[in-house]
Amino acid sequence: MALRPPGHCLDTLQAQTPLVHCITNFVAMNSSANILLALGASPAMLHAREEAGEFTALANALSINIGTVSPDFAVGMHDAARIARKHHTPWVLDPVAVGATAYRRRLCAELLEHAPTLIRANASEILCLSGMASPGRGADSTASPHEARDAAMALADRQRCLVGVSGEVDLITDGRRTAYIRGGHAMMPRITTLGCGLSATAAAFLGVADTTPESRFDAVTAAFGCFALAGERAAAHAAGPGSFIPAFLDALYHLSPEALNTHLALEVHHGL
Amino acid sequence: MALRPPGHCLDTLQAQTPLVHCITNFVAMNSSANILLALGASPAMLHAREEAGEFTALANALSINIGTVSPDFAVGMHDAARIARKHHTPWVLDPVAVGATAYRRRLCAELLEHAPTLIRANASEILCLSGMASPGRGADSTASPHEARDAAMALADRQRCLVGVSGEVDLITDGRRTAYIRGGHAMMPRITTLGCGLSATAAAFLGVADTTPESRFDAVTAAFGCFALAGERAAAHAAGPGSFIPAFLDALYHLSPEALNTHLALEVHHGL
Amino acid sequence: MALRPPGHCLDTLQAQTPLVHCITNFVAMNSSANILLALGASPAMLHAREEAGEFTALANALSINIGTVSPDFAVGMHDAARIARKHHTPWVLDPVAVGATAYRRRLCAELLEHAPTLIRANASEILCLSGMASPGRGADSTASPHEARDAAMALADRQRCLVGVSGEVDLITDGRRTAYIRGGHAMMPRITTLGCGLSATAAAFLGVADTTPESRFDAVTAAFGCFALAGERAAAHAAGPGSFIPAFLDALYHLSPEALNTHLALEVHHGL
Repeated sequence: MALRPPGHCLDTLQAQTPLVHCITNFVAMNSSANILLALGASPAMLHAREEAGEFTALANALSINIGTVSPDFAVGMHDAARIARKHHTPWVLDPVAVGATAYRRRLCAELLEHAPTLIRANASEILCLSGMASPGRGADSTASPHEARDAAMALADRQRCLVGVSGEVDLITDGRRTAYIRGGHAMMPRITTLGCGLSATAAAFLGVADTTPESRFDAVTAAFGCFALAGERAAAHAAGPGSFIPAFLDALYHLSPEALNTHLALEVHHGL
Repeated sequence: MALRPPGHCLDTLQAQTPLVHCITNFVAMNSSANILLALGASPAMLHAREEAGEFTALANALSINIGTVSPDFAVGMHDAARIARKHHTPWVLDPVAVGATAYRRRLCAELLEHAPTLIRANASEILCLSGMASPGRGADSTASPHEARDAAMALADRQRCLVGVSGEVDLITDGRRTAYIRGGHAMMPRITTLGCGLSATAAAFLGVADTTPESRFDAVTAAFGCFALAGERAAAHAAGPGSFIPAFLDALYHLSPEALNTHLALEVHHGL
Repeated sequence: MALRPPGHCLDTLQAQTPLVHCITNFVAMNSSANILLALGASPAMLHAREEAGEFTALANALSINIGTVSPDFAVGMHDAARIARKHHTPWVLDPVAVGATAYRRRLCAELLEHAPTLIRANASEILCLSGMASPGRGADSTASPHEARDAAMALADRQRCLVGVSGEVDLITDGRRTAYIRGGHAMMPRITTLGCGLSATAAAFLGVADTTPESRFDAVTAAFGCFALAGERAAAHAAGPGSFIPAFLDALYHLSPEALNTHLALEVHHGL
């Protein structure tokens, strides 16, 4: 079965302006908000236990990123994820640097119990979450996406969720089929929190998708596709990682469903 | 009575470099600091209860924004607002997404007791604060500034403060007269925390203004005017919301009192 | 004794990609992460007491900045600094606005007990830390680097550490010799948290340096040198403080060891 062209997902997102509740790290907050706005979604960053769950109930999607987490944020994450699950609101887990400390491993294990719709991470983090190895030194990945393929499929299968792995080639899997996306640019790892922004973007796409497994797979693929394509275009205008940042937001803003359908280098494999 | 041309306010701000104590949200902190610096003010972001009030006593103005608030920040907000009132230091309240949760409504009701000099918000937030309606879904406004005019005047009258409403046309009112400002650009809502930065900027202008109602009205009008004019100029150089951000800071940096006097589309109405 | 040319430090940094644990303020987090990435280091921002010390043990260097500190961050700072000292991991203290409140003075006095490798600050902050005077109004400096020279040397001598003072002319001292660096641009104080980013950058250079006093002096000088040179280059391309920011990151990204050796205006004085 061929993947439906991802443009229709972007079309829907731009028409519906999904409200995306982000409980994310301090480094990514501004950047992720601007990424969502550039694309046509509506971001809201708030985390206090006094309101996190109440707000999730209003949102179209939830994105949780543990980058600079502390116990007060963790409580808000749990409340929000619990409400998301209860309301069948899609939610994304971004397990930043999960391999680095015992606190992160424990927190992620707990958050996984709330059944995320998607885990979006780099290869090292997926290896760690899947239980296969992990030295993990901070937020940077030291494993390749290829090494991570088996781990991603196993994790998706075990958690009954989607897994999206960012790398030189991105991969998205539901445990059975796997989409590979080429694009982006080698400069992107030299800019902070683009991965966090991708997690929030995937939440936005999930927030306007049907609840069928196929639609959700398409939605996540479209999110990765937007980043791959906007990354390429931004790199063509950037003199370095500094000028890449505004160029990337501009590229997301100008991305059209047609461009996504025409230019995205997407490949889908079935089974193992 | 015609409004005095707003250029003199900018002139005073640039000459005096007011120290602006900002207790703001995590998304806006960097952006608001850069906005204040570009314009010629001196920002300071700190919030801990151990020092918030002590620092407010040193500052020329205070700006409180509840975007990513939690109880620890709220305590600092209360202490700072209390000291501001005691020292007759002007302070601005930015009630982000006040309609979204009970926690926000309660917090804003409490903060209003410290008598803000200005409430700066979008139309939905003003409608909510005034007690007139509010669905409120996050930080985005769903009501037009025109719908909000009555609410703004009623709120200004009840709180005996200035109210500034950002929108396609901005309005500033003290409950009797209302200034309307045209300018800015349709792209501005696609960039995060510009409104938060405007609240901090209004605090900066209030920090160097006389304490007369007229001077404070002028000060807030000048702040909105700077954003309207810098927004227009930035949009002329921007290829999208990403490149708008640096262009906007550049435009604020180069804004002159003369340009503000000459080019600002400002209109003042008296009474209801 | 002449200073070794600073290019070799940059060469080492780019080859080794040091992991820099940053416990810094909310305003600086994104900017400092991008600065470290542009230069070729690997940033990690996290602060919770549940993991701060554990993570420091993995890192090549630690940078602590008290800008938006609160008690929960302070606990993480203490744990991290304690571990850094125990593991002989170099660490940098950036005592933002130490003169402004009693809370900051007390916190810095406590952090100094963990023996920082470098104190990086502006002249006002160094004057305050050294015990010589201090009006201190926020993060901006009101004393000149020249006024601060004696204070810096006294502080370096008392704390047995390096002291780096940012200003129109930067100075770095170990209490005996002093390096002066010219460069940068008058626009740099109009951009927020560049100083914080310099502290993190100095940590990165220290993280790949030998532990000899000479190598550490060289490392800090190289960090200041990168900022001076990248600042000059960025200013040549910037239309204002907004466009300076991406231009500065681009300049850091393209900085070569050769450029640093050839173009840096560096002068070293010995003794008092």
